[in-house]
Amino acid sequence: MPENNAPEPLTLTPVGVVRSEIKAPMLTATDQGLSLSDRLDKIRAAHRRHRQAVAELVIDPALDGVLDGVEGFSHILVLYWPHLVPSERRGLRRVHPMGRQDLPEQGIFATCSPARPNPVLLTAVRLVEREGNVLRVRGLDAVDGSPIVDIKPYVHYALKIEGTTVPEWMERIHRDMAEAGPEGHG
Amino acid sequence: MPENNAPEPLTLTPVGVVRSEIKAPMLTATDQGLSLSDRLDKIRAAHRRHRQAVAELVIDPALDGVLDGVEGFSHILVLYWPHLVPSERRGLRRVHPMGRQDLPEQGIFATCSPARPNPVLLTAVRLVEREGNVLRVRGLDAVDGSPIVDIKPYVHYALKIEGTTVPEWMERIHRDMAEAGPEGHG
Repeated sequence: MPENNAPEPLTLTPVGVVRSEIKAPMLTATDQGLSLSDRLDKIRAAHRRHRQAVAELVIDPALDGVLDGVEGFSHILVLYWPHLVPSERRGLRRVHPMGRQDLPEQGIFATCSPARPNPVLLTAVRLVEREGNVLRVRGLDAVDGSPIVDIKPYVHYALKIEGTTVPEWMERIHRDMAEAGPEGHG
Repeated sequence: MPENNAPEPLTLTPVGVVRSEIKAPMLTATDQGLSLSDRLDKIRAAHRRHRQAVAELVIDPALDGVLDGVEGFSHILVLYWPHLVPSERRGLRRVHPMGRQDLPEQGIFATCSPARPNPVLLTAVRLVEREGNVLRVRGLDAVDGSPIVDIKPYVHYALKIEGTTVPEWMERIHRDMAEAGPEGHG
């Protein structure tokens, strides 16, 4: 922090856990940067499968009432912690996006890298169903066992922005992930 | 956590600080719930002003390189910590949205309440300019001095979802906030 050399840490307590068929991350982080865990065509196929799969968000039953009314939204945002990224990887500053050496290196804040100073990841998902303290969602890319940090409603007034643009390298990632079908980058 | 009675806390270290003309939150939290800090018409006017104002995200200069390439995006997501919400308010489970007694009580995870179990707030903003370790953005609703948790690119492939729906009470909040003009709920 510019005005404080030893900022006080902020603490999060998991509010639940992800149950998913995804057992390993698509990207792994070393101190050299990111790398894909498999060949691009296999990653792409797995990614497409995962986009269609239903995952469960099991919320701590002690947080009684906290989900009430969430079933009124078609979509939600899931904030979660990528628990399989080693904490020493939080120091990465620049990476080749998706571990692709053919794409120019970018600062972590320009990427969706799971290894980042504060690894709180975010995915917008379809809310399929609520059953008590369990939400079933479609489109979650979190690995099984990920601690859930927060659930927020997807409010299009705030989140659906017209006319946004991304750099060429991000469009290329999307194109390459989407090649096998209409559903692409998550 | 369902399988662990004493989950390990996850720690965040601020990566920067918000500089904004917003000096006080629109909503305050007590153990009775949320309340608006002023009359609705004044809140609405302030909200419209704030949507147009430029705020600064001052990133810790020690994180050299972490912003490289972010200027290639038209919009970014800012994750920040609402530092003026007392930590004991993290236990709130259900609230009247926006502190409005005329709206039915909802679970915190169905609302955008700043008081929540893990108070990491999220706003999508227009990236106006980068100057070294400072990002100038339009549309940020964070209070001056808020610790910044993360910056992510706004990637429309993942965030701009068609056909999403919200419950009637959320539409009503938007309508009431938008009444004075075309720019509404943040």
